[in-house]
Amino acid sequence: MESNTKFNTPEAAAFALLKERKLTMASAESCTGGLIAKRMTDLSGASAVFRGGVVSYATEVKADVLGVDADVLAEFGAVSEPVARAMAEGARRIMKADIAVSTTGVAGPDKDDRGNEVGTVYVAIAADGETVCHKLNLDGDREAIRIAAASHAFEMIIEYLK
Amino acid sequence: MESNTKFNTPEAAAFALLKERKLTMASAESCTGGLIAKRMTDLSGASAVFRGGVVSYATEVKADVLGVDADVLAEFGAVSEPVARAMAEGARRIMKADIAVSTTGVAGPDKDDRGNEVGTVYVAIAADGETVCHKLNLDGDREAIRIAAASHAFEMIIEYLK
Repeated sequence: MESNTKFNTPEAAAFALLKERKLTMASAESCTGGLIAKRMTDLSGASAVFRGGVVSYATEVKADVLGVDADVLAEFGAVSEPVARAMAEGARRIMKADIAVSTTGVAGPDKDDRGNEVGTVYVAIAADGETVCHKLNLDGDREAIRIAAASHAFEMIIEYLK
Repeated sequence: MESNTKFNTPEAAAFALLKERKLTMASAESCTGGLIAKRMTDLSGASAVFRGGVVSYATEVKADVLGVDADVLAEFGAVSEPVARAMAEGARRIMKADIAVSTTGVAGPDKDDRGNEVGTVYVAIAADGETVCHKLNLDGDREAIRIAAASHAFEMIIEYLK
């Protein structure tokens, strides 16, 4: 009989994999607003793997704290693949983590000023020499979109480590 | 008859006051792990007042990202009044916010390595030329301590603005 540990949440599964591999993570969150960090630190012992996170809600914080190029922000807008990638890479660098995840999107209730629909979210993961970004089109209200986007970030960590 | 608006949560009350005064806020969280940022950004329209937050879980992130003096961290430990004050002041500075709040404490289940009891939390608020810090001794489990500490941070904003 094959034995598989089952986890109740993607954060618990990501935490177990990171701990087993002795790897650390960080987060850079826009639309999820701290939910990734909150869910990871709900787990006792999180400090073994979680270095920290930046909630870069204002565009200026994305540039000033995470080091996202102001020209990239101006050209593509905050809700874009290049910004999601740069946020993850910035978080990984400033917090000296092995892996970092990022989210930037429109949680609603309104479209953003560039016409991105509610539910459009970019989720990126940056690791050693590699950054991957997914574009999601999520259904539901603000809370549902935030939960699904945060879960997707944990699932990208799991996918990367498996 | 006197009319008073009642809010269901301290974050909703803090949000309304900040918005009315056209002031912005930021957060620097250790033991609450992003819960302050998450609760503020649960509110739609949060971007009008919330600049962003740093979840400085690792000690090095407190120094590197928030600019907390490494000597202060070494002398007093991460769970201390001087560190809570420096975290709030650092968050206010790097995110260019009018007001910043911080938390550092022991959410449990175990004491920290300096013998601080579970439930010991320092919560600070930094505003123009003034930083105030409260030491809390909170009851309950990890989740209850985190919720109460985050609520206290919002209550300090309300107190400051009233």
